[in-house]
Amino acid sequence: RLVLARVNSFCIQLCYFLSVSFFGFVLLKVLKPRTHDSFKPRNLDLFFTSVSATTVSSMSTVEMEVFSNSQLIVLTILMLIGGEIFTSMVGLHFKKSQLKKMENKISSLANNDPSTYQSGLVMAEKQDFENLESGNQETSLDSSVDFLKYKSIKFLCFVVLGYFIAVQVLGVSLVSTYLALVSSSRNVLKNKGLNLLTFSIFSVVSTFANCGFLPTNENMVVFKNNSGLLLILIPQILLGNTLFPSCLRFCVWFLGKFFKRVESNYLLKKTSEIGYFHLLPSHHSSYLFVTVFGFIIAQFILFCSMEWNSAGLSGLNSYQKTIGILFQTMNTRYAGESIVDLSTISSAILVLFVVMMYLPPYTSFLPIKDDEEIYKKTRNRRGKLLENILFSQLSYLAIFIILVCITERQKLKEDPLNFSLLNIVVEVVSAYGSVGFTTGYSCDRQTQPNSNCVNKFYGFSGKWSDEGKIILIVVMVFGRLKKFNMDGGRTWKLL
Amino acid sequence: RLVLARVNSFCIQLCYFLSVSFFGFVLLKVLKPRTHDSFKPRNLDLFFTSVSATTVSSMSTVEMEVFSNSQLIVLTILMLIGGEIFTSMVGLHFKKSQLKKMENKISSLANNDPSTYQSGLVMAEKQDFENLESGNQETSLDSSVDFLKYKSIKFLCFVVLGYFIAVQVLGVSLVSTYLALVSSSRNVLKNKGLNLLTFSIFSVVSTFANCGFLPTNENMVVFKNNSGLLLILIPQILLGNTLFPSCLRFCVWFLGKFFKRVESNYLLKKTSEIGYFHLLPSHHSSYLFVTVFGFIIAQFILFCSMEWNSAGLSGLNSYQKTIGILFQTMNTRYAGESIVDLSTISSAILVLFVVMMYLPPYTSFLPIKDDEEIYKKTRNRRGKLLENILFSQLSYLAIFIILVCITERQKLKEDPLNFSLLNIVVEVVSAYGSVGFTTGYSCDRQTQPNSNCVNKFYGFSGKWSDEGKIILIVVMVFGRLKKFNMDGGRTWKLL
Ligand SMILES: [K+]
Ligand SMILES: [K+]
Repeated sequence: RLVLARVNSFCIQLCYFLSVSFFGFVLLKVLKPRTHDSFKPRNLDLFFTSVSATTVSSMSTVEMEVFSNSQLIVLTILMLIGGEIFTSMVGLHFKKSQLKKMENKISSLANNDPSTYQSGLVMAEKQDFENLESGNQETSLDSSVDFLKYKSIKFLCFVVLGYFIAVQVLGVSLVSTYLALVSSSRNVLKNKGLNLLTFSIFSVVSTFANCGFLPTNENMVVFKNNSGLLLILIPQILLGNTLFPSCLRFCVWFLGKFFKRVESNYLLKKTSEIGYFHLLPSHHSSYLFVTVFGFIIAQFILFCSMEWNSAGLSGLNSYQKTIGILFQTMNTRYAGESIVDLSTISSAILVLFVVMMYLPPYTSFLPIKDDEEIYKKTRNRRGKLLENILFSQLSYLAIFIILVCITERQKLKEDPLNFSLLNIVVEVVSAYGSVGFTTGYSCDRQTQPNSNCVNKFYGFSGKWSDEGKIILIVVMVFGRLKKFNMDGGRTWKLL
Repeated sequence: RLVLARVNSFCIQLCYFLSVSFFGFVLLKVLKPRTHDSFKPRNLDLFFTSVSATTVSSMSTVEMEVFSNSQLIVLTILMLIGGEIFTSMVGLHFKKSQLKKMENKISSLANNDPSTYQSGLVMAEKQDFENLESGNQETSLDSSVDFLKYKSIKFLCFVVLGYFIAVQVLGVSLVSTYLALVSSSRNVLKNKGLNLLTFSIFSVVSTFANCGFLPTNENMVVFKNNSGLLLILIPQILLGNTLFPSCLRFCVWFLGKFFKRVESNYLLKKTSEIGYFHLLPSHHSSYLFVTVFGFIIAQFILFCSMEWNSAGLSGLNSYQKTIGILFQTMNTRYAGESIVDLSTISSAILVLFVVMMYLPPYTSFLPIKDDEEIYKKTRNRRGKLLENILFSQLSYLAIFIILVCITERQKLKEDPLNFSLLNIVVEVVSAYGSVGFTTGYSCDRQTQPNSNCVNKFYGFSGKWSDEGKIILIVVMVFGRLKKFNMDGGRTWKLL
């Protein structure tokens, strides 16, 4: 049953992302691009962009300044409803209404006939007991405990929604204020003919959802000396993804301190019974916090030691460099905005970035506790057949990389510096991890220079063949749904 | 206690490999190379070669034809005593003599005083029971069962030794016969001034230990149309490594059928109590067999479809191509001999090769059985502290690759086609997996041609800086001992 629920949930999410992507594609297609007289994006590229926004990957095969203001608004909506926090919120509301329905059933039984109510309760209790035994607490019915659970989930819904709205509204107002105050950043947007409000909303929604699209062609490179803007966006990156569980737990605790004490207590103590993916047990939340900053520090140190005097950071003072590098290293998980051209930084850093992009968001150093045992028990109960055909995540990644090497084999030979394995790996892992980093394509790197080549501001995948792009679309969707296969490949024994 | 035993065993093996490597280095240094008047290998390169032979990696930083006949004999001995089957045999003999000692103690007690013997037995039984409970059966003493265990291990020692000698003697005689019969292969060796017998022994020992060194500079490329020789070596590769557990089990069963029925039964049924790493349970042995051929077929298909008409295989007829490709794909696990220049084959294949090289030898598709539970129990009992500081194998590999990118950062920029990430990854993973594949270094790939550059017949790592070579030495030793860390990184939760 648990397996069925998982498969079901997987299918629902898959359909959700595909239909939203398709819907987004239709809207993008109907609306005219800014360059409608000179250049019209191909259908595949538009679909790619739509999938990329919906899966919050920000891989691009079209320059961003091609899109008109209305298209940017469509992209904003796609990012808003594609983000992990939003989708999880929908799931939570769904669960809440399910609980509500069951509760109504029982209370209507109780109203009609006290004895039926009694038997109903007994039945419910029995079922609850069975559920406990089988490790599935999702449909438990025990009324008093369950009413509390219902109330707690309702409370959690409000907290998440409030968090979602508050952080982004704060972000938009801060960015707007910054643009109003700092003329250099405002001028950049004016020269590009971008609407200031659209930019504020787009960039904050994109950053909070950890998508990483920006309306500018050069992404954040044009703002690399606007340290204030970077400082405004940094919390959005963390609050919207890697630190969300820790902050959510903190909010629940904080609100419980002053209001809703009972619900908050239930949420904090029976975290695993709620079954909300983003509400983690106490010690996990703390270790997550430590791990996130540990990874940032490791990247920061390596980046500083290798690139402090590089060309990409020239023209910045020490303070701007520090903020810029901090911003860059935070973006590997998983916003994917960039203040430097990634193709110019050293391979050592890129390899570390690949590792960071690969790691799932809530990767955490977590010394084993006793509840590890319980965790294992539930894992053992997965479906046998399904388990046998699932590979591990890395195997899938290797397969995707091999497939891309096959579709691009001609270019791998003719243009080895652009189509190097590192660049392909960065692109595929970046799509898998919903990051959006890319090394791009540069005509200067061609070993047999082609005079028709023009440098473009889109990702490396923009130069791939159609088959390659389709594979990358699959990788983005696969990566967005990776949490369903985190324990794949268990039938393989490595000895 | 189990942890201590593991740490102990790890230290013993580490000391063994380091001292053998050092001893080998001294011998190689004392003996004169063939080119003693024109070229003398550096100390670091000699040590590298010695480590490479001892850890059966066959990474090279010196051309093989530099070594004189006596140095080749030293290398043969290093490969012989560095191979996995030989070292495991030593461990088994050690375990046998331990059991023997205990048995002697008990029987001397019995001779002196029957009652002491009785109490000794009870004590022994009690201890045995405790051992069973704690999952450590290594020092059990129960006399009747234990006598059988001792006899079985003694029998297993003979089987392994017999297997070790028989397969290699057969191989040497077959290669010698082939060289005597086929003049083309004989002429190659004569022109190079290599001793025929040395070549036979060297190549068979190297192939059986899955080392992959050959006395010729070009490795097997010069023999790519000698399909007979390839066919002789193919079984040596499989019997000496990936298929060893399956064949060993078959031998035990086969010998039990006609001799030593009791010991054989004990070995087949109580496989896990023997604690010999290479004797796997029945279903594991069968799945291993299937997996090994599955991997070979997958590689064979990809290689044929991408490279059938490539330059590296030109001049061969279909039969020779088929045998050649079969030989090549078998060498990824883990002999590392080559009939083509790996730098010329497509990246898709190289990526698959990297995956294959990374996988440990007894990787097997293994649907979960009930004894999985037991396996988990013993895993849970590992030391907490030690576990916390161990990363997973892949993290270590990533760290090593990043370190190499740092030491070679200058060349990564100046010579991007030779020092590409793919080539570095192939080199590091090949060293880690004790394979020995290399893409080599080619002056033609330099983007800024250097007129002093001369193409050499050694591995890519031969062109690395000293620091890079030292890292690779560490990687080879680490990879040779990887079985001690197969479940590292368990304190990290990927969610
Ligand atoms: K992203
Ligand atoms: K090898």
